[in-house]
This record gives sequence, C-alpha cells and structure tokens, in this order.
Amino acid sequence: MTDNSVICALATSQAMSAISVIRVSGKNTFEVVGKIISFQNSLKNFNSLKGYTIHKAQIFDNKDLVDDVLISVFKNPLSYTGENMIEISCHGSTFIQQKIINLLTSNGARLATAGEFTLRSFLNGKIDLSQAEAIADLISSANKASHHIAINQMRGRFKNELAILREKLLNLVSLIELELDFSEEDVEFAGRKKLIDTINELINKIQRLKNSFELGNVIKNGIPVTIAGNTNVGKSTLLNAILNEDKAIVSDIPGTTRDVIEDIIVYKGISFRFADTAGIRKSTNNLEKIGITRAYEKMKQSKVILLMIDVLMTQIQIEDIYKSVSAKLNSSQVIILLLNKIDLINQDKLYKLVKFCIKLTGKNSFLNISAKNNSKIDELLNLLYVNVIKQEIYSNETIISNSRHVEALSKSEESLLRAKDGIQNNISSDLLAQDLKEVLYYIGNITGEITTNEVLGNIFKNFCIGK
Amino acid sequence: MTDNSVICALATSQAMSAISVIRVSGKNTFEVVGKIISFQNSLKNFNSLKGYTIHKAQIFDNKDLVDDVLISVFKNPLSYTGENMIEISCHGSTFIQQKIINLLTSNGARLATAGEFTLRSFLNGKIDLSQAEAIADLISSANKASHHIAINQMRGRFKNELAILREKLLNLVSLIELELDFSEEDVEFAGRKKLIDTINELINKIQRLKNSFELGNVIKNGIPVTIAGNTNVGKSTLLNAILNEDKAIVSDIPGTTRDVIEDIIVYKGISFRFADTAGIRKSTNNLEKIGITRAYEKMKQSKVILLMIDVLMTQIQIEDIYKSVSAKLNSSQVIILLLNKIDLINQDKLYKLVKFCIKLTGKNSFLNISAKNNSKIDELLNLLYVNVIKQEIYSNETIISNSRHVEALSKSEESLLRAKDGIQNNISSDLLAQDLKEVLYYIGNITGEITTNEVLGNIFKNFCIGK
Repeated sequence: MTDNSVICALATSQAMSAISVIRVSGKNTFEVVGKIISFQNSLKNFNSLKGYTIHKAQIFDNKDLVDDVLISVFKNPLSYTGENMIEISCHGSTFIQQKIINLLTSNGARLATAGEFTLRSFLNGKIDLSQAEAIADLISSANKASHHIAINQMRGRFKNELAILREKLLNLVSLIELELDFSEEDVEFAGRKKLIDTINELINKIQRLKNSFELGNVIKNGIPVTIAGNTNVGKSTLLNAILNEDKAIVSDIPGTTRDVIEDIIVYKGISFRFADTAGIRKSTNNLEKIGITRAYEKMKQSKVILLMIDVLMTQIQIEDIYKSVSAKLNSSQVIILLLNKIDLINQDKLYKLVKFCIKLTGKNSFLNISAKNNSKIDELLNLLYVNVIKQEIYSNETIISNSRHVEALSKSEESLLRAKDGIQNNISSDLLAQDLKEVLYYIGNITGEITTNEVLGNIFKNFCIGK
Repeated sequence: MTDNSVICALATSQAMSAISVIRVSGKNTFEVVGKIISFQNSLKNFNSLKGYTIHKAQIFDNKDLVDDVLISVFKNPLSYTGENMIEISCHGSTFIQQKIINLLTSNGARLATAGEFTLRSFLNGKIDLSQAEAIADLISSANKASHHIAINQMRGRFKNELAILREKLLNLVSLIELELDFSEEDVEFAGRKKLIDTINELINKIQRLKNSFELGNVIKNGIPVTIAGNTNVGKSTLLNAILNEDKAIVSDIPGTTRDVIEDIIVYKGISFRFADTAGIRKSTNNLEKIGITRAYEKMKQSKVILLMIDVLMTQIQIEDIYKSVSAKLNSSQVIILLLNKIDLINQDKLYKLVKFCIKLTGKNSFLNISAKNNSKIDELLNLLYVNVIKQEIYSNETIISNSRHVEALSKSEESLLRAKDGIQNNISSDLLAQDLKEVLYYIGNITGEITTNEVLGNIFKNFCIGK
C-alpha cells in the first residue's frame, strides 16, 4: 500500500500571511528539494545535515530568486510521516507559495492528496487509525470540549483501551482454540462461568464506549437548538439576547453565511447551534403554512427545542402548544418551555402561571425570562447545558466521537452477545472462537490493523491538504 | 526606541489548516516559553539548546495538554529579529492557536503589533527600512512582476544604489566643508565644473529611480482598465471572453467580492483590473444618466480605456464617441479602440472601416475583434501590455514601487537642483553644503538611518500581524 513518491503540499492556509510552510515527504525528498534550493552556506549538503535542524537557503527558478527560506530537515524514521521530510518556511505570499509548489512538482514531487502525510504516518506504523482520525478532529476542533476529546484520542487513550480489550479477547480465543486441539479428549480449558464473566466485562466496556458517542457526537458537531413558539412571543429577541450575551462567545463558522448556517454560541466548551423559526399559528395563508411546516422540520432535526410562550397566553393555549409540539418529538429530544415577557404582569399572576408551567414540564425544563431585558440568559444557557450534557466531559473516561467507531463497537457487541448466548446454549468451541474472532476483526477495523484501501480512502479524504 | 518585552503572534493565517506557526521574540523568550512547555526529552533546557534546532514538546494549560508541538529555537543575534526567538509549530486548530497565544500572554509575553517582528529586525540593524518595506510588499505580492520588484528590494538592491549615492554625496560634502575650514584662504578644493558633473550624475540616477515609480506603482497595484462604449456593442461579452481566456490566469482578490473589486487577470506577471461600465448613449432616463456619469468616472480612474465600437456603427458615430471620450482623458491615460462584431460584415466593408479607425487612433491603439467568438483576446491582452509597460521589468534596473520613496527622491532632486543652481550663481560653500546635507537627510529617510517614531508607525501599521 505504501508508495515511494515524494509528495508536497502547503501545510498552512493559503491566505496571505507572514509565513507559509510547505511540506515535502518521501524517500527522495532531499534529492527533489536539493534541485530547487541553494544553502546559504554553500558547504552544506543534505547528507551531512542532522535531523531536527534548520538551515537558511534560497529557492531559485532557473536563475531567478524566488525567496529566502528556512529549511527544516527531518530524517527517516524520526519525522511526522516516518520518511525523509523537509518543511520549507517561506514568505506567506500567494505567488511564492504557488511558485515553490510548482517548482517541487516539476522537479519530481507530486501534490499530496488530502491527509496523505498522516496516511503515510499510519502506513509506516507511527500511529494507529484512531489516532490518525483524531488528528483531523484536533485540527477542526474549535472549542474546549472537542479539543479535549480529540487530543486524548490522538495521544492514544482510545487505542490503549482497545489494546486491553484485544488482549483479553486474544486470551479467550487461544484458550478456546486449545480446546479445539484437544477436542477428542473432551477437555474444557476455559471454564464456562469464567468465559461468561470475561465476555460480560468486555460487553460492559464496549457499551460504555458506545454510550459515550452520544456526548462525543454532540461535542464534535454542536448541539442543534431550535427556538419555536407562536408568532410574537419574542423568539428573535431571545436569539439576539443570546448572541449578545457577554459571557458567551459568539462565533461564525468561517466561510459560511447566516443564510446557510445558524449562529453558534460556545458555552462551557460546547457549541450550541441556534436556529430561529417562523411563528406557529393556525393559518390559511399558504406561504405562512410553508413556514410553519419548516419550523416543525427544524424541530425534528434539533436536540433541544426552546418553546417560547408569553404571559399573555392562557393556560389552555400554553398546554395546547406544549402538548402539540411534544407529540411530534422523539424521546431523545429535549423540550424547554420559556415563559417570556414576565415584566408585563404582576407577581401574583406570574406565580400562578409559573406554577402551572412547572407542573406541565417538570422543574428542570422550564424557565421564566425577559428576553427584551436580557434577563436570565446565562441561566438559560446553563439549563440547556445540564439538559444535554449529563456526563463529566473533562474526566479521564474515553469519549468516542466517530460514527465509524461506534459502528464497529456495535458489531463487536453483537458478536459478544452471540458468543455469550452460544455458551449458554452449549455451542461448539469452534463456533465460539468464530464469534470472538469477529470481535477482534471489528476492533482491528478501528485501529486499522485490519483495513482496506476503500476504508482508508474514505477516512483521509476529509483531511486538510498538507496534513 | 527598542523595547525588551517578549512579543508573540500567529505568523500563519488564522484559518484552520494542517499546521500553524506562532512566533515569540524578545530577550526573555526562553523564560516565557519555558513556562508553558515541557520538552519530550526532559533533560533538555533552553540554555543547552543550539540555535537553528527543532525540538518536540508539549504545551500545557495547568495539567491539561493543549498540543504536541515542535519548537524551533533561534538565538540572539542569529534570528529574524536579532533577538532570542521561538517558533511554535502546532496543529492548525483555531482553538489551539488562540489557547497558545493566551498562555503566552498570561505568562509574560504581549501580543505583537503589526510588523513588530520586522520593526525589531530593523531596529537591531539586521535590515534597512527599504528592506523592511520590501518584506511587506513581498508578502502581498500576488504575481511575478510585483514579486520581482519586492524580492530585489528585500535583497538590498535599492539599498545598495542608495549607498553609492550616499557615498558620492558624502565625498562632495566633505570637500566643500574642507573649503569652509580654509575659507579665509579662498581655496577651492572642489572644482566647480567637477562638482556640477557629480551633481548631474546624482540627479540622473535619482530621476531614473523616480521615473521607475510609474511602472512600479502599476505593477504593485495593478492596471485599472475600463471597458466602455455604447450600449450593446459587446462590452460584457468581451469581459467574459477575457476572463475565460485560458492563457490568462483569472484570480479574485481573497476576501472580496465582485461587488467591490473588479475581476483581475494576470498577464505576463502584471495584474489588469477590468471594470465593465454602463453603455454610453444620449438618454433622458435619469437612472441611465447616473450609470453613464459613473462610466465616465470609472474611465477617469483608469490607466487604459478599452473603447468598444461595432461594425454596425457609422464612421461619424465612431469618430464622435472616440473624440468625446478622448477629450475627457488626460495625457497619461491610454485609449484603445476595439472594433467588435467583425463577423457581421463582408471583408471589403471591414477593410474600409479598419482603415478609418487606424487613421483615427494610430496603429498601436486599435484592434478588430469578435468578442463572441473569443477571437484575438490574446492579441488584445498583448496590446494592453505594450501600451502600458514600456520598460523591461525583469532587468537588473531597480524599480521603486513605494510612494514614500518617490517622495524622498523628489525632495532629493529638488535639493540637488538647488545646489546646482547655487554653484552656477556662486553661492557660498556653507549654503551649498546645506543643500547637499538635505539630500543626505532625504536618502537617510528612505533607508531609515534618519527616522522618527511617527514614520516608523506609519510604515509598520500596514504589515501583517506576525511579521
């Protein structure tokens, strides 16, 4: 699967900046780079240079000076890819970036595909596949929680957990295969009780990992929150109040506009993606009906629905809309009732209305606010947080965030359950071994010990160029 | 003027990318960086590390791992700034970039101002001011010609020319000052004839540099070209044909849209900024009148006007519009007449019309085309090029592109002319010395030997952060 070609790519963003870094990797890196540079100290040559050193050089296009650069030298196997590598640090002009890459490709290098440096690092055994995936996640991490998950995975925490699982599985399989060797003598090397205990232990571990995906996914992709409710209850005012809240960090995803992506707030390291919707009311207007249908669609895609009501609505109206929205949601979705415009009625009436609402929703799914006065926005964000994040994020527990991993873990669990069932039904040792080998296969998929070009292609195509 | 503080900044673009580089510079760089990193090899410390070496390290926020990084070490005076420097190469996540910069600033560093690394390089005598300015130009160079000017200036070509001028001026001044010392004896150490010869030589050199600015400016900022003409002569078709021309490279300036900036084509290393305009015709429609007024305004800001006509117009109509547009332009502007839709008439009629047009404009300011068929677009670009670029760009002659430099050169020229005039009018040696010292002063302004904080502030505020 490895290929010996020299690959190159811009490793920094191609926007104009103080400096840019161009990466080159492959067996013949020094020969290729040697063709386009002259060291400032003319006595230097790549053979005599040590790894992890930096050298002043000039890059030439024929006789024309392209740039004064710094050349960082890394020698096989002590480099990111495990191959000979050069990092060229040049002035961050778009012209210079392009020129140097053109010079490299016309002197024996080729453009790296997305993630190809990391792919080589994996193929050369420097990291496993879960770590490679974590590097992509780390680069795209834009908040504390997603960074936490990615860096722990990159540092091998998940890999180590899988190694322990694998070790236990291998022990089980070898015990069972020993039985097979002595099958004519009817020996049981592995006590069935102990086998089931170990399998249960493995199932528990895998379930814990699997269950962490709900949180991991939310952290990685952000939590979709829809603000819904009747017309004129203050939905847009609330959205503005949330976005202007000083304690929250407001961010836009670069390169996108509000037309496509909703506004994002990072609160306690978690991204909440807020979407405003059209007001819900019984309407005969066709255009308005479409808006309301879209509002319900948005709600269906959300983790949390902030259902806004106001103090001018009757208890019957409130119960009506709450129940009609609740009826359309599934059990994993969270609905929070927000009573707005609390400054419009007296304390007595408010008290009664709040009591009614809490009875409807439960204490932790209700809040009274005044969106106009920015009142209780922080409380609202905290309520959102505790309703979704029911687990300690910054613990030492592994949190998985990759759907490929959860799929492989689910299949492992299935095979383990089948094995357990088999033991209880006294199936033959060879069938049992078969089930357990399947688990090894699925875990091998995660780490990349067992993989295909197609799987690798799918994983690395989502990487940055230059990584 | 120097300050000892440790400064830090992101040196690469802040967009997500494979890697990012954070620069730190200042006397206590190693102390500051030492507080937030641990070397992978725990025996390492900054005192024992050599310059121009790279080291694996981890950055921590208290006990939390922020990133695995590479640390490049540069030691005073062998660094970009001439101070102790570190470049931290981290994963290109926006969260990690920000986190590391926050850690640095909360451990004794401060954010660098725009261009502050280069300012320090200048203040520490590693480069002169013209070279510092060239670095900013080099980074923003987006085509071959602007790159050529900037890199030569950065490598000190302009600086060296100025050094020669300065040397000659100093000789003159010392000869004249010698006369002053012996003024009572009425000795003339410097022969007046020879003085004038030298001054003429200096004036010639300065004028040549000054004159190169027209080209330098055009190269740096691109050539504004307006496509004008009556309605429906094919202006937009031409613009599209030019933009789709394979031999030309079409580019957009990053971060801008077509609403604000016109489309840019790079041809032979020169940027041409094309603007389409509303068609010109006598109109009573108010909105259309505004469009036509704007078209004339655009023409006034352009270096070249591509005036389009078509074969369906009469000779009188053609002469009319050509003269009315010509009348509104100044002598430095170029007007090129383009006869479009040549496929609509027979060769005989075309021949007559072409003959008429060439008589009107001269041979090098006319071209017949068929915008619809993409015919002669390359010829058109070449005609544009030769009409504007009347000088060899890629020669060894210095081309200046900085209005600050042209201003100082103009003042130098004035003082030299005054000195020459003075000699011819037998003014006293001390007044003569005064004039020549003024020239030294202005040249010192260019190189930064004589400068003020205000001037430096104005120069460096336009730099990238991190450079």
